Amino acid sequence: MNFSVLILGSSAAIPTGERNPTSQLVKYHNQSFLIDCGEGTQMQIRKYAAKMGGIQHIFISHLHGDHYFGLIGLLSSFHLLGRDKALWIYGPAPLKEIIDVQLRASNTVLRFPLHFVETRTDTFHLLFEHERIRVFSFPLRHSLPVTGFLFREKPGKRKIIKERIEGLNIPPAYFRRIIEGEDFTDEQGKIYRNDYLTYPPPPPRSYAYCSDTAYDERIIPFIKGVDLLYHEATFGADMQEVARERLHSTTRDAASIAKKAEVKSLIIGHFSPRYEDVRGLVKEASEIFPYVQAVADGDVYFIG
Amino acid sequence: MNFSVLILGSSAAIPTGERNPTSQLVKYHNQSFLIDCGEGTQMQIRKYAAKMGGIQHIFISHLHGDHYFGLIGLLSSFHLLGRDKALWIYGPAPLKEIIDVQLRASNTVLRFPLHFVETRTDTFHLLFEHERIRVFSFPLRHSLPVTGFLFREKPGKRKIIKERIEGLNIPPAYFRRIIEGEDFTDEQGKIYRNDYLTYPPPPPRSYAYCSDTAYDERIIPFIKGVDLLYHEATFGADMQEVARERLHSTTRDAASIAKKAEVKSLIIGHFSPRYEDVRGLVKEASEIFPYVQAVADGDVYFIG
Repeated sequence: MNFSVLILGSSAAIPTGERNPTSQLVKYHNQSFLIDCGEGTQMQIRKYAAKMGGIQHIFISHLHGDHYFGLIGLLSSFHLLGRDKALWIYGPAPLKEIIDVQLRASNTVLRFPLHFVETRTDTFHLLFEHERIRVFSFPLRHSLPVTGFLFREKPGKRKIIKERIEGLNIPPAYFRRIIEGEDFTDEQGKIYRNDYLTYPPPPPRSYAYCSDTAYDERIIPFIKGVDLLYHEATFGADMQEVARERLHSTTRDAASIAKKAEVKSLIIGHFSPRYEDVRGLVKEASEIFPYVQAVADGDVYFIG
Repeated sequence: MNFSVLILGSSAAIPTGERNPTSQLVKYHNQSFLIDCGEGTQMQIRKYAAKMGGIQHIFISHLHGDHYFGLIGLLSSFHLLGRDKALWIYGPAPLKEIIDVQLRASNTVLRFPLHFVETRTDTFHLLFEHERIRVFSFPLRHSLPVTGFLFREKPGKRKIIKERIEGLNIPPAYFRRIIEGEDFTDEQGKIYRNDYLTYPPPPPRSYAYCSDTAYDERIIPFIKGVDLLYHEATFGADMQEVARERLHSTTRDAASIAKKAEVKSLIIGHFSPRYEDVRGLVKEASEIFPYVQAVADGDVYFIG
């Protein structure tokens, strides 16, 4: 089951020639989830050959423009391209009025159902789930209400070991119970333990996205042990005071959170335009947490 | 005095890999005027090395998103880059609320004075003037209220012919009256006619921008004889019925307006994404009006 993140934008508040404002496309099997949608996101989706029509859920972390100014253009293009599939947007309450006022100004009645779900910034909260994955939001600490997002697979089913069920005459209807963990008792009353008959499922994979935030250890329980953590690192360690003041993070902040949360890998982004070469930022972070990379527009990270 | 137009975006409603949504930067001497501001305009300004800070006046033709979705991002970047110079925005009334609702959502109080001027769609109207140039709006015909814009130089001063004033003992204070067209009478009562003493000023130059519009001969008086006319040509001549229905123009419509208005040159744009190669569109238009070119992002046209 493919589980990946495509980086569509990685700049801080002001786009540069190389980096668009923040947006990421999470793919899970045949579902696409968009996280944040800075100006130009629809062009980036086209540039990196992702499928716009596949997006059914859009998660907006907060209402600084570099995280959502591209949303109305994307909705408008969906409309003009004749989309009829429903779309869900999850974000802070004022986003709904921002969308509505712009649709009204052009007398646009969208051709597709648009469902708006207000995010909560007080607690860890389930936003969405389907058969195989759940998406949660959790509060971050910034100058506006901001949420991070956690994508976590549900525990999978156990897998039957073919060689071990041969000759046991298990009724096919029973298979479902075995992959859910039950033992099997044959007609002679012999018990076959489930862990003899099956392999355990692969461990559930997870991706956590920490948008604009100051260093905040309170998020650690929410992102504990994830396979991949994105954490903003707007500034290098030398700018720690500026980072504190603006409620952003440094490379060392991001790496410390990754280390304390015992994540498997860390990606950092949202770089201030002062850093043309970000290799120094990666080096700083790697001194605290070694499994770290700097994102660039167009990068794809596979999870698990 | 430099007078030029830089094409920042030339697509119709949906951006393509090659064309951004509509925007143009008019430069007149040391002033920059932005016309329309589709999504990604700030990135295009950077890409084509134009100076963002030089823009003091922004003219928005109408509130279809491909003509203004980039405005809020541009304002936001002005703010973040520490702009303090005042900015004037001219556009339909609802644009003010669209800007305000987004500034409120991020608790942003702009660092620079922003003046909003509502455009009128009932008549030819002076929007702005300075020492050397005037900008007018005029109504177009579309599914929303739309204005075109006319940039017209004021008539220049006459230029004194040095050889002819030698020995006439003209008091320096009198020079201003001569370049404004007065004759000169010397102490003996001899009259020197102004057209003997001076060259006429160069003819005033002009640029007209006709944003989204159906074919409409009522605009001809407003754009009569301009040096350069931009007129949308969303469709080829074979799509005339679709153009009529959607209140857009075809290549032949644009060329007919150019011909009837006796403009010097025509540029066409706002091409439907169905036209990857626009040479056929230019050929169609040129059969009616020969001095025509198709715009592409990054093109610069010098006026006069």
